[in-house]
Amino acid sequence: MRRRNLSLVLHAVAAEGPLSRAAVAGRIGLTRAAVSSLVDELVRAGLLMELGREQSGGVGRPGSALSLSDRGPAGVGAEIGVDHLSVAAVDLRGKVRARATAEGDNRGRPPEPVLKELGALLRRVGEAVHGEGLRPAGVAVAVPGLVARDTRTVVRAPNLGWWDVDPAAVLPCGPQLTVDNEANLGALAELWIGGNPAPRDFVHVSAEIGIGAAVVVDGRLLRGAHGYAGELGHVPVRPEGPRCACGGRGCLEQYAGEEAVLRAAGLTTTGRPVRLLADRAAAGDPDVLRALRGAGAALGIALAGAVNLLDPRAVVLGGALSRLSPWLLPSLERELSRRTAEAARPTVTVSGLGSDGPLLGAAHSVIRAVLDDPASYTGAAGEV
Amino acid sequence: MRRRNLSLVLHAVAAEGPLSRAAVAGRIGLTRAAVSSLVDELVRAGLLMELGREQSGGVGRPGSALSLSDRGPAGVGAEIGVDHLSVAAVDLRGKVRARATAEGDNRGRPPEPVLKELGALLRRVGEAVHGEGLRPAGVAVAVPGLVARDTRTVVRAPNLGWWDVDPAAVLPCGPQLTVDNEANLGALAELWIGGNPAPRDFVHVSAEIGIGAAVVVDGRLLRGAHGYAGELGHVPVRPEGPRCACGGRGCLEQYAGEEAVLRAAGLTTTGRPVRLLADRAAAGDPDVLRALRGAGAALGIALAGAVNLLDPRAVVLGGALSRLSPWLLPSLERELSRRTAEAARPTVTVSGLGSDGPLLGAAHSVIRAVLDDPASYTGAAGEV
Repeated sequence: MRRRNLSLVLHAVAAEGPLSRAAVAGRIGLTRAAVSSLVDELVRAGLLMELGREQSGGVGRPGSALSLSDRGPAGVGAEIGVDHLSVAAVDLRGKVRARATAEGDNRGRPPEPVLKELGALLRRVGEAVHGEGLRPAGVAVAVPGLVARDTRTVVRAPNLGWWDVDPAAVLPCGPQLTVDNEANLGALAELWIGGNPAPRDFVHVSAEIGIGAAVVVDGRLLRGAHGYAGELGHVPVRPEGPRCACGGRGCLEQYAGEEAVLRAAGLTTTGRPVRLLADRAAAGDPDVLRALRGAGAALGIALAGAVNLLDPRAVVLGGALSRLSPWLLPSLERELSRRTAEAARPTVTVSGLGSDGPLLGAAHSVIRAVLDDPASYTGAAGEV
Repeated sequence: MRRRNLSLVLHAVAAEGPLSRAAVAGRIGLTRAAVSSLVDELVRAGLLMELGREQSGGVGRPGSALSLSDRGPAGVGAEIGVDHLSVAAVDLRGKVRARATAEGDNRGRPPEPVLKELGALLRRVGEAVHGEGLRPAGVAVAVPGLVARDTRTVVRAPNLGWWDVDPAAVLPCGPQLTVDNEANLGALAELWIGGNPAPRDFVHVSAEIGIGAAVVVDGRLLRGAHGYAGELGHVPVRPEGPRCACGGRGCLEQYAGEEAVLRAAGLTTTGRPVRLLADRAAAGDPDVLRALRGAGAALGIALAGAVNLLDPRAVVLGGALSRLSPWLLPSLERELSRRTAEAARPTVTVSGLGSDGPLLGAAHSVIRAVLDDPASYTGAAGEV
């Protein structure tokens, strides 16, 4: 019960702080004395800080305003992308306090050197946050692949060429390490910090080479029985279409994945294809515009199926899709309108988090775990 | 708290009864004295009955075994089908105690005469259960159309030709009336009484003229933001395929709905098409076999999308599809295997409830509401 009440106090301050002890007591329905004891424990643990006496407009002694600590735990997020590695640390308030990125093509590289390189970035960010008086509370890693439910095993990440990889075997983060699919973490970022108000029933679609999606129902991520929900990229768009690496035919990825769009535009690149496509589209390149129209239509067809099945309130385009959205949206929305009932039609929005969604979602997932169970936070996350 | 504990006692007896008071106390973690007081109230309300003294093998006084009452509340379910109206009443134990059906084509009939005819069936079943000493606790109506979330309004039931119909305006059931989509109630029946063990993460697909589906995640029906989730019939199978009444093209319904299958087999009928198709298929009619193969493949393509998106543990074919499953399953499973990852592939099963699923789900939904909140049960459900 005390564990739960500690979390209630933290969440109250997180949602509405700075708040006085009396205000917290009012919000969560406990006595002022009970709240004071909980607050004392949270201040001692470095999770709350007192901003000093504030002048109260009401009766009674002026209270000290409480705020989430900016020197307490840090949530460390890492992202293994096909063409980059990134690490970011956020404090309890969600502010990014340190960040590191290494660009480079990770396709076909064996897991160990990639994870060692990521480990070096993690150490660099860990040192930076220690230097600011923060203590890493855990590390969450976003990967472009399937992670079996309640495990840390990357079962398959075809665009990296990884099968059954356990990042915990190489990364120096000990038991405080979690691993999750990048689309899941991108959707959680949207839920936690994306909107104002944040949507609570939505399909989040993002793309790098593959196309990932995640479904949030009533504020909860739908993970699926095995942890593999959200594979929008393999929803059939044209059942007799081009062969896909998954074994199927005509999957969405064959029409709207980065490589498919490059191919349709007659382009090749070894760099970041999204930048190339966006630049060419902005310059009016007709082949690129046509390729993006086709990708948008394919996204609309696949999303029409998802909308008919799930009836979400919103569709959110994130990751690379947010950058390309000006050219994808017209055909996407046309297909969606043709194929869904007006009463059930969701709003289509573009994520404000851009390609940072999965990385921020990873970092925030660590912070959310502390807010949800502050008693479990000890301030020691392995050697990070 | 007492309301909640009354429900805990009832659910314990429902799940494992007959049970002694001591056994109930053990199951739910309350004292024997507290349980006795709760049991007394439930016996007085006619929800529990004592089966008489039982010989105890253990120490202490022999206890009286408690069972759900077979003379307490009845759950009344009704179904408005395109070619039939049905009503069934079940007791607290889930046993069907009365039933009535009227065959006849309801396509294009205005709502009022259909609902009046259903009202007559409801009265007949109401009299029958009263005669058995049961008291209707409410009426739930299954309709082949969309029902807006948390309302009783049938927003659209295209195969009946109904738009914005409120059955409560005609049916004599007062405030104890609920209305829900037939596919939702079919899936709930599967969840509550369908399997052993019942699946908790599944996609339930059923068909009459339209194709309905419902998604159950972790034992809860996914209703969607507006209440319209589960429209598998309008998932695009071939985006340039035949025009659909919904405004789209190439929807699943255009390949696997009853009328589409009849058309593909070169048949017409005014009777029950499923019976005709099953009889012809059993007799080896090659046109019917080919049409069912095509329907199965289209179902497999649409379900591959659903499986990639939702990662359910099982796909359950119910309603008319259960009867046709021998001829649908081979092509359905072939498409599903080609288009889904092996690790995420669900089992495909056929509902044992057949076409009774929605009707039984409706009746049981009333009983579940009593088990979940026995204090709300007063034994008076309007004039039924």
